[in-house]
Amino acid sequence: MELVRWPLCRVLLMNDARYPWLILVPQRPGMREIFDLSEEDQARLLGETRRAARALAAYGHPDKLNVAALGNVVAQLHLHVIARFVGDEAWPRPVWGVHPARPYGEAARQERLTALRRLLGEGGEGGEG
Amino acid sequence: MELVRWPLCRVLLMNDARYPWLILVPQRPGMREIFDLSEEDQARLLGETRRAARALAAYGHPDKLNVAALGNVVAQLHLHVIARFVGDEAWPRPVWGVHPARPYGEAARQERLTALRRLLGEGGEGGEG
Repeated sequence: MELVRWPLCRVLLMNDARYPWLILVPQRPGMREIFDLSEEDQARLLGETRRAARALAAYGHPDKLNVAALGNVVAQLHLHVIARFVGDEAWPRPVWGVHPARPYGEAARQERLTALRRLLGEGGEGGEG
Repeated sequence: MELVRWPLCRVLLMNDARYPWLILVPQRPGMREIFDLSEEDQARLLGETRRAARALAAYGHPDKLNVAALGNVVAQLHLHVIARFVGDEAWPRPVWGVHPARPYGEAARQERLTALRRLLGEGGEGGEG
């Protein structure tokens, strides 16, 4: 579910209602590692990740953010930015592989998309915010 | 096990012989999130992570790098940079929580420390490499 498109990344919402979970996908085909990107794009990715992290921090005030580039299963470079809460289903473990995803119901999905789109739209242009 | 100390980060070797696994610890007490750092330090962290990733890429030519800032258990900001191989014990899952760590034997530990220290010492100064 695409939330917004920034100069470098498409920002997607993971379809798992347990965690506010963003995925940033740099629009650079064939890239697998962060460090395959040009240094200019790496700096851009850092800026856009910062912007995504700020939106998640403003959304529900999580106890911790998890930021990760894994890509063992899906090869195309992508970055996870996940809001974690003490007592969430996987806490304190990482979220991957703990239990199957719990897809959003339609109302919850719409509510979260709307709130996150608003927050992701704030804070400057071009990932510089 | 400290491998090297860069301008921002101490670089540690995780005591788990299954994966070449570095941990970068920014020498900034009290920081929990990447985005708690100043933007200057964030850029420095990116540069030092790139340098660590290049060293791991040169060490054994992994199939994938995993880069993650989780910190759910240990609060002090740290970044994992892990060399992954198709067929390693956790593949394709993330490494955390799959099985208990397998500590290095003394000879293997010394060999890996020596090889990684050499590679981490290459590629420029100050995380700009």
